[in-house]
Amino acid sequence: MNVQHYLEDLSVGQRFDAGPITLDPQAIKRFAAEFDPQPFHLDDVAAHDTLFGGLAASGWHTAAMTMRLLVECGFKPVGGVIGAGIEELQWPKPTRPHDTLSIEAEILELRTSQTRPERGMAKVRVTTLNQSREVVQSYVGNLVIRRRPLLPHTGSPIR
Amino acid sequence: MNVQHYLEDLSVGQRFDAGPITLDPQAIKRFAAEFDPQPFHLDDVAAHDTLFGGLAASGWHTAAMTMRLLVECGFKPVGGVIGAGIEELQWPKPTRPHDTLSIEAEILELRTSQTRPERGMAKVRVTTLNQSREVVQSYVGNLVIRRRPLLPHTGSPIR
Repeated sequence: MNVQHYLEDLSVGQRFDAGPITLDPQAIKRFAAEFDPQPFHLDDVAAHDTLFGGLAASGWHTAAMTMRLLVECGFKPVGGVIGAGIEELQWPKPTRPHDTLSIEAEILELRTSQTRPERGMAKVRVTTLNQSREVVQSYVGNLVIRRRPLLPHTGSPIR
Repeated sequence: MNVQHYLEDLSVGQRFDAGPITLDPQAIKRFAAEFDPQPFHLDDVAAHDTLFGGLAASGWHTAAMTMRLLVECGFKPVGGVIGAGIEELQWPKPTRPHDTLSIEAEILELRTSQTRPERGMAKVRVTTLNQSREVVQSYVGNLVIRRRPLLPHTGSPIR
């Protein structure tokens, strides 16, 4: 059974991980053909003479695979993983064909909403690593997290 | 013929646009099944009872479509559109089935590299709008841009 998390169930410093998943070269080219049609994402030979020096996944493909791993990890906000925004998204190294990617997610900050008492926000650092434990992507996500509903009349949280 | 841009060909305040492209509901579900398998991205009925109140595209799908439009717009750095990182990625409104998306890209800042004389960086704000001109996504991207090669001996740029 999956435990689901309200804001009150989470704590700063809590960590979750998921993966690995392996990145197929055909998947790199298929994503690129639809969303990022540039030579270094589409064609092994043409990619040689580019800044990447060989085929590399679109950064947005790495970001999308990271989301898949985030949905699969043990972090299960009630109502789903819903991002309001992302800070400091970086791709320090390219993702290559046959790389196997894993993620680590760490809760950096939790706060309640001033205007929406039924929800709060979690700031979560999400780091994507390849099989050599090199960071291929990192960001800090701001996620909407539901608060535990209060019991009517008493104002105490329902347990 | 496409003009290609070196750093020296770009200027702060320069703007580019592209679109519209229409977002098919099947494309929303297909992307979600692969990368963001949550009810509000997968199933019209299940999406009703979520924060989104109806089917919505994954934010990463909006980001990927934005990249497609960025590759198609008139901004053509020599060597391609290569992002080092993204700041302040926000999704102020969901992207819905049948939305038609356009982008506006504006150059905010241009600088040369201290360590790599052959390249520089452009800071570019990329805004994604729907058919009602509502902002569905915005970010500031830091892109790697090649500098115009210098003539040997003279040190003057090749024109």
